[in-house]
Amino acid sequence: MRASNLFAPSRKELPKDETSTNAQLLLRAGYVDKLMAGVYSLLPLGLTVQRHIERIIREEMNALGAQELLLPALHPKSLWDVTGRWATLADIMYQFRDHQDRSVGLGTTHEEVITDIVAHSVTSYRDLPLKVYQIQTKFRDEPRAKSGLIRLREFTMKDLYTFHADAADLATCYDQVQAAYRTIFERCGLKAKIIEASGGAFTKEFSHEFSVVSDAGEDRIVFCPACDVAQNKEIARVKGGQLCPNGDGTLAEAKAVEVGNIFKLGTRFSEALHAVFRDAHGREQPMHMASYGIGPGRVLATIVEVHHDEQGIVWPASVSPSLATIISLGAEPAAAALYRACEKAGVPVLYADRAGSAGEQFATADLLGFPVRIVASKKTGAKLEWKRRDEDTLELVTPAEALKRLTALERERYAR
Amino acid sequence: MRASNLFAPSRKELPKDETSTNAQLLLRAGYVDKLMAGVYSLLPLGLTVQRHIERIIREEMNALGAQELLLPALHPKSLWDVTGRWATLADIMYQFRDHQDRSVGLGTTHEEVITDIVAHSVTSYRDLPLKVYQIQTKFRDEPRAKSGLIRLREFTMKDLYTFHADAADLATCYDQVQAAYRTIFERCGLKAKIIEASGGAFTKEFSHEFSVVSDAGEDRIVFCPACDVAQNKEIARVKGGQLCPNGDGTLAEAKAVEVGNIFKLGTRFSEALHAVFRDAHGREQPMHMASYGIGPGRVLATIVEVHHDEQGIVWPASVSPSLATIISLGAEPAAAALYRACEKAGVPVLYADRAGSAGEQFATADLLGFPVRIVASKKTGAKLEWKRRDEDTLELVTPAEALKRLTALERERYAR
Repeated sequence: MRASNLFAPSRKELPKDETSTNAQLLLRAGYVDKLMAGVYSLLPLGLTVQRHIERIIREEMNALGAQELLLPALHPKSLWDVTGRWATLADIMYQFRDHQDRSVGLGTTHEEVITDIVAHSVTSYRDLPLKVYQIQTKFRDEPRAKSGLIRLREFTMKDLYTFHADAADLATCYDQVQAAYRTIFERCGLKAKIIEASGGAFTKEFSHEFSVVSDAGEDRIVFCPACDVAQNKEIARVKGGQLCPNGDGTLAEAKAVEVGNIFKLGTRFSEALHAVFRDAHGREQPMHMASYGIGPGRVLATIVEVHHDEQGIVWPASVSPSLATIISLGAEPAAAALYRACEKAGVPVLYADRAGSAGEQFATADLLGFPVRIVASKKTGAKLEWKRRDEDTLELVTPAEALKRLTALERERYAR
Repeated sequence: MRASNLFAPSRKELPKDETSTNAQLLLRAGYVDKLMAGVYSLLPLGLTVQRHIERIIREEMNALGAQELLLPALHPKSLWDVTGRWATLADIMYQFRDHQDRSVGLGTTHEEVITDIVAHSVTSYRDLPLKVYQIQTKFRDEPRAKSGLIRLREFTMKDLYTFHADAADLATCYDQVQAAYRTIFERCGLKAKIIEASGGAFTKEFSHEFSVVSDAGEDRIVFCPACDVAQNKEIARVKGGQLCPNGDGTLAEAKAVEVGNIFKLGTRFSEALHAVFRDAHGREQPMHMASYGIGPGRVLATIVEVHHDEQGIVWPASVSPSLATIISLGAEPAAAALYRACEKAGVPVLYADRAGSAGEQFATADLLGFPVRIVASKKTGAKLEWKRRDEDTLELVTPAEALKRLTALERERYAR
């Protein structure tokens, strides 16, 4: 992509109420735009990052044998009344009446909708287990939408729902999804701790959260540095600080961002919505269920919180919208040649073809945060200057070597 | 995909209020599920078709130099008040108050949001033209959601917005988009007529609609069979039936589904929202705008209306979730071998590995509507029976020939 063709309007003045690092950097660099508190537009660069995160999630969901579908955002009150959650989630759910005076709401989650579909679709143990997921827009009327893109009123969510013949099968699947979640966060460049947590509005069983230590976080977690076992503060209190048998008792506490969560729902929703099946003996049984969430937008914001410096964002290559910024300092032919070679090889790079001083070009490249900055100048002669965004070292490489390295980087991020 | 692993619950009993052919077939075959009037879930097969339609749209939008972004569904009243459309669109817009008593609405369209972004991002003629699009969920509180998936309360929309320095540049772009729309509908297997229409709530200029003749349509169009020039009924009345100079005066009238529309907006929105730029002489000018919509879900439903027979759907290969159903009649090794070869070659096929009589298997394959049915049986020996869904002829082909044909079909649908 040529910078002159890219819609990535950089901003110098930010909304006054925007105090979080992720939103400030994403707004300044032109990745997002703000419509109102908790509601942002994804501009082309921001959307590309989110698509990469979604691609990684899809790859790991599909590897579990889960199938993608797409459920509506607009839900009838009647369905939510069956589980009682129209009332219990009223504080955070957008609920209103349509022009025909029917009560509808915007889905904050989809247990009711998917369980209802499965209830009238699946009848036999032969159809279980069933694993279905979606990547879909959810709405929550957060009392205070702060933390930039970490806590939004409108956000994309990957939600996986699994249906099982018994608790043992559910437990096996739960462990497999937990492993897939570890892989997803690693591939996105995040070190997520698995935290024991309470089930919240969903279940009385303990659930698990995936949390990334960051000062931008709204949660407090307790963990044992020796074995990395972690609990959220509430559970730590309930359990009296007993984290692991092997640690020396030293506990650390930190702020953390919850980037994913997994819940064993048991038969709560299947009993309420009559999602039953016939077992091998012909007996009617309720299905055992679990649900599993990841917010791609929150992952994006958390990556920015964890991977940035004073100059700007430092994207992990796996999710970066582009792998390099190519800058010409009076050496257009060399820069343009590498740009064309990258286009031909299917390697996404940004060619900085807008007017600007060397200082401005470097500052923009650092703010945008792609993994590599490549400079063609009279000084570099037939070679190019190669600098990784996360390192200070400058290297001189041939154009062929630069292309080879970029092609390898691109291949790497599509490898599982 | 193995049928035993696919979540495509076929239904024999349909909702009583479901009278449209598209919804009946899509529900019976397990492509979609109905949540309430005008609101459907896309099950895996339905989502795959929609993703193919969206892929074709994206390819043609990107070829125009348009950039994809993603705007929110939740809009503040204040922004819509600027153009006066909070009031004028109140009948079809979901408008409500959040928990902090602020008025918000769900976007029926995005002129206000995108123009506002461009107003504070673009300042110079050097940044024009700008072409941005999204594929995003929109909401309209339709008084009567009928016609199945043709007229929905919640639906995915591709909306492109273009911003220009003058009317001439806008006109050039408008023609290019019109050509891209022709290509999109052709690639989706639809013959769309370009209809002169009024600008509706958007503009006083005439606009254009892309309409597919079908009894499922809610519009009436008038066209000249000799030259294929067409108008909607309202315009025909205004223009007194003057369609084309070359026709012999014979006019036909038909029901049609509007699958796309393009509007010249002029400076109406840019003036209201102060989307101005400095021209080469430093003078401030309002931008000239156009907007262009296609509903992928409506395209999906229209394809079903146009391409079906009494047995079920007849997908064009370009958007079919799978290219073939492979059925074994007592010849599992041959069927499984072709299935594995297709998987390896990246050709999506359905292996009908569920129990069922030959009649049941054939009926399901016809209902699902993939382009080819392939049968392995004792009768066919080392060969396989090849039958196209849209033809009656049976052919015997070798497994190698079957794979070759399927691979070619798959390549074809990704070719531009």
